[in-house]
Amino acid sequence: MIDMTTQNLEKLFYPESIAVVGVSREEEKLGHVIFRVLLENRRKGLLRARVYGVNPRADYILGEKIYPSVEAVPDLVDMAIIVIPANLVESAIEDLGKKGVKVAVIVSAGFSEIGKTELERRVVEKAERFGIRVLGPNCLGVLSAWSGVDTIFLPYTKKLGDGREVLSTPRPGRGFVALVSQSGALGVAALDYMYGENIGLSHFVSIGNKADIDEVDLIDYLKNDPYTRVILLYLENVKYGRKFVEIVSEVTRKKPVVALKAGRTIAGKRAAASHTAALAGVDEIYDAAFRRAGVIRANDMEELFDLAKALAKQPPAKGDKVGILTDGGGAGVMATDMAEMLGLRVPELVGEARDRLEELKARGFLPEFAQVSNPVDLTGSATDKMYVETARILLESEEIDALAILAMHHVPGIPDPIVLVKELSKIAMEHAKPVVVVDIGGSEAAVLERKEFDANGLPAYPTPERAVKALWGLVKYGEYLLRKGSFDEYVNNFLRIRTKDLINIQINSASG
Amino acid sequence: MIDMTTQNLEKLFYPESIAVVGVSREEEKLGHVIFRVLLENRRKGLLRARVYGVNPRADYILGEKIYPSVEAVPDLVDMAIIVIPANLVESAIEDLGKKGVKVAVIVSAGFSEIGKTELERRVVEKAERFGIRVLGPNCLGVLSAWSGVDTIFLPYTKKLGDGREVLSTPRPGRGFVALVSQSGALGVAALDYMYGENIGLSHFVSIGNKADIDEVDLIDYLKNDPYTRVILLYLENVKYGRKFVEIVSEVTRKKPVVALKAGRTIAGKRAAASHTAALAGVDEIYDAAFRRAGVIRANDMEELFDLAKALAKQPPAKGDKVGILTDGGGAGVMATDMAEMLGLRVPELVGEARDRLEELKARGFLPEFAQVSNPVDLTGSATDKMYVETARILLESEEIDALAILAMHHVPGIPDPIVLVKELSKIAMEHAKPVVVVDIGGSEAAVLERKEFDANGLPAYPTPERAVKALWGLVKYGEYLLRKGSFDEYVNNFLRIRTKDLINIQINSASG
Repeated sequence: MIDMTTQNLEKLFYPESIAVVGVSREEEKLGHVIFRVLLENRRKGLLRARVYGVNPRADYILGEKIYPSVEAVPDLVDMAIIVIPANLVESAIEDLGKKGVKVAVIVSAGFSEIGKTELERRVVEKAERFGIRVLGPNCLGVLSAWSGVDTIFLPYTKKLGDGREVLSTPRPGRGFVALVSQSGALGVAALDYMYGENIGLSHFVSIGNKADIDEVDLIDYLKNDPYTRVILLYLENVKYGRKFVEIVSEVTRKKPVVALKAGRTIAGKRAAASHTAALAGVDEIYDAAFRRAGVIRANDMEELFDLAKALAKQPPAKGDKVGILTDGGGAGVMATDMAEMLGLRVPELVGEARDRLEELKARGFLPEFAQVSNPVDLTGSATDKMYVETARILLESEEIDALAILAMHHVPGIPDPIVLVKELSKIAMEHAKPVVVVDIGGSEAAVLERKEFDANGLPAYPTPERAVKALWGLVKYGEYLLRKGSFDEYVNNFLRIRTKDLINIQINSASG
Repeated sequence: MIDMTTQNLEKLFYPESIAVVGVSREEEKLGHVIFRVLLENRRKGLLRARVYGVNPRADYILGEKIYPSVEAVPDLVDMAIIVIPANLVESAIEDLGKKGVKVAVIVSAGFSEIGKTELERRVVEKAERFGIRVLGPNCLGVLSAWSGVDTIFLPYTKKLGDGREVLSTPRPGRGFVALVSQSGALGVAALDYMYGENIGLSHFVSIGNKADIDEVDLIDYLKNDPYTRVILLYLENVKYGRKFVEIVSEVTRKKPVVALKAGRTIAGKRAAASHTAALAGVDEIYDAAFRRAGVIRANDMEELFDLAKALAKQPPAKGDKVGILTDGGGAGVMATDMAEMLGLRVPELVGEARDRLEELKARGFLPEFAQVSNPVDLTGSATDKMYVETARILLESEEIDALAILAMHHVPGIPDPIVLVKELSKIAMEHAKPVVVVDIGGSEAAVLERKEFDANGLPAYPTPERAVKALWGLVKYGEYLLRKGSFDEYVNNFLRIRTKDLINIQINSASG
């Protein structure tokens, strides 16, 4: 373990000047792809950092002057991306050291993951002597949606046999979810998944062999990162358990951390060991450590991102009483079942909210056969207006801590899902209780409704059960914050940020 | 209970002539939408049945002559769709009876679901006197992808505020999965979901109050339906438990039945009771009944359809030994964990398959750092060719009963997912072991790869865990068939049909 130098870690995400060590002429080589993507990001205005290529056997690549060493670059260089054979890395570190580089991303493989532990140790020791922090080796490095740093060596698109060029390795748009992954391949797949689920990214880091910088260092750094509101982890092991609990439990009071820890079962541990040479350890110990650190544990990949979306967009719940509002009785039953199975409550309404809903029925505003006991079932006669009024009543009621709105667009009374989304999102923003939404289906209307909800701050899911599982995360996180005495501070801060977001959304849609 | 008249039930799906009782002039009225969709289906050549509108106060609607009664229609009428106020239904049945109608779909609501049990009883008794089978009341009726019958009163598209017309209530394409739903709204949402998941439909039936035709009648009928290979159920209650077990256990030897039973928890039961007036009963009793009847129980909506896709496209497994083939170590670990958590085995390869894989490594065909113990991890250096050869070895090995292939398209060695799909699907078809596949992400390439896999007979999923859960269904169904002594018969039949499908795919792609 090396002492944390937060200043150096900052250069991973916000460098002023980047050198790619091992830039190649050949289009399909990693050193070429990384160099090209960085240059493109600069051209697009996404990346402000200056970019330099290093290769002793090239003068110009992609029209850019190439330097024989990092030392020869006529500018400061604070971040270096190393894409050369493993046996050359040690001497490259020497070169970086002379230049005063702060952080090195060693993309190259061929270290401890194939038993070359000694080589890896020497590289890190040398870096430490120069005060260089090392990410990797054997990693994909960093993607920052906000600063434009992108060391992922997989091009955006693929050219198919029939000539079509298709988006293949998308980078998600700017957002507030950070992802730290011990598996590079899974990381890339996860970025593609986030893209598909409309989850915006703050920063992605692939930690590879984590010879120096590990998940704890990054979580600690991200605690104060202004763009990160939720931290996701994909882990196969944690080397320093005590350090993890100590540092992460400080972070989780400020930001939720959700972990997918693979290698839970005996066969899974064996698979993990052969994958990252990581000793997965006893799963119960991880469970206990996560609990102590306030980390929410996801059971699978889908849940990891479903929870992320909810935690990024909605405040935690102050209790476990869930309201369910629906236009389809069946979906309401499914949501209720899942809530109860997760240990949440779906209380029958008996107080003022019930009276107000009954009154709406009595004066014909709600359909004669609407159910108003919770789930509140507006039936197939549901309209936009009914959703808005009932959602308001439920959010105002003390009998409800959190709300799941199932608004299947199929009913005739939702003529335009976009209108419903705007109205519901306005109501939700007026309250400090978490709201998740559902529309079911793969039709244009369903995809549109979910996308609009996501864009307007209400996390949207394609099944009732997934939405309720996400709500469970908001209840659990709320419980944790209450226990730690930081609930009010977190929520106040969250609501302040959200209001700012809302104003931005309004400005954008006014100008768009 | 009324005696089963299979011949009459056939008219639900394959009528020769349909009357819509209560066709309306007003565009948004149910009776108008149903009439219009049926006429359009005829025009498109989807529907062969002749279609007649009935309304005593109209001469022409949508350019078609309208009749004052069913009796007045100058043609035989074997199916009637009833869309008139509840209090008029009884006398309409009289009219149907005189005409010799075989089956009536009562879309109209206002019966037992709002306490009008007596009215419902009278309607069914009258129908019974005329030998008419009744679907509903308070239902959406039937959608048959093969015959073009479509009584769903929700139009395909919606016109948004900005003038765009978007697909809103899609009907899935022709396929082999039947869906019987006790909730109409959920049924429509489920059809939209199937559309999005590339799951082809045979027939959909919404059973509503199931005053006459119930889930058991339909399962029994679908047993011999040539287009149905998997039967899905969404149920809130089962009225006749003994009949269910008796009849369904005969069906499950021939075709898999998967059920999502809502109202599992106390709050869920309360919600179900207020939704369909169904007494949900003790969940353990349902569990036992499903087990005895050989029904596979899905835990949530997503699982219901994930299982359906697997069972429709792949044979059951003869054992619980799962092989996992991947190009991403992390995804392999996640799949392994899920398999073990579901009680499946992911055995370390020790026999001939291991030797063959080691040999491929020794002669440089597989990467030096590939893992060949199961999961077989081809690493980021994976290529199409490696997938094909290793899949073949795994499928040929006695150490493996079922295979999950995780082929994340992001690696450079899969230049065109379509090529990989064709090759892998060929290998899979040469073996009687089930194969499921995964690609992760929402990019064009990911969506394309999954769609191509689905179209070529390999069920594709967006996360490792969902694929493994689907494989679990194939293992469970295999165990059941083995216990019942009908494994070989089922598999032989399945493989025969599959070969026919494959030939059709080849003809289509040759001509397309």
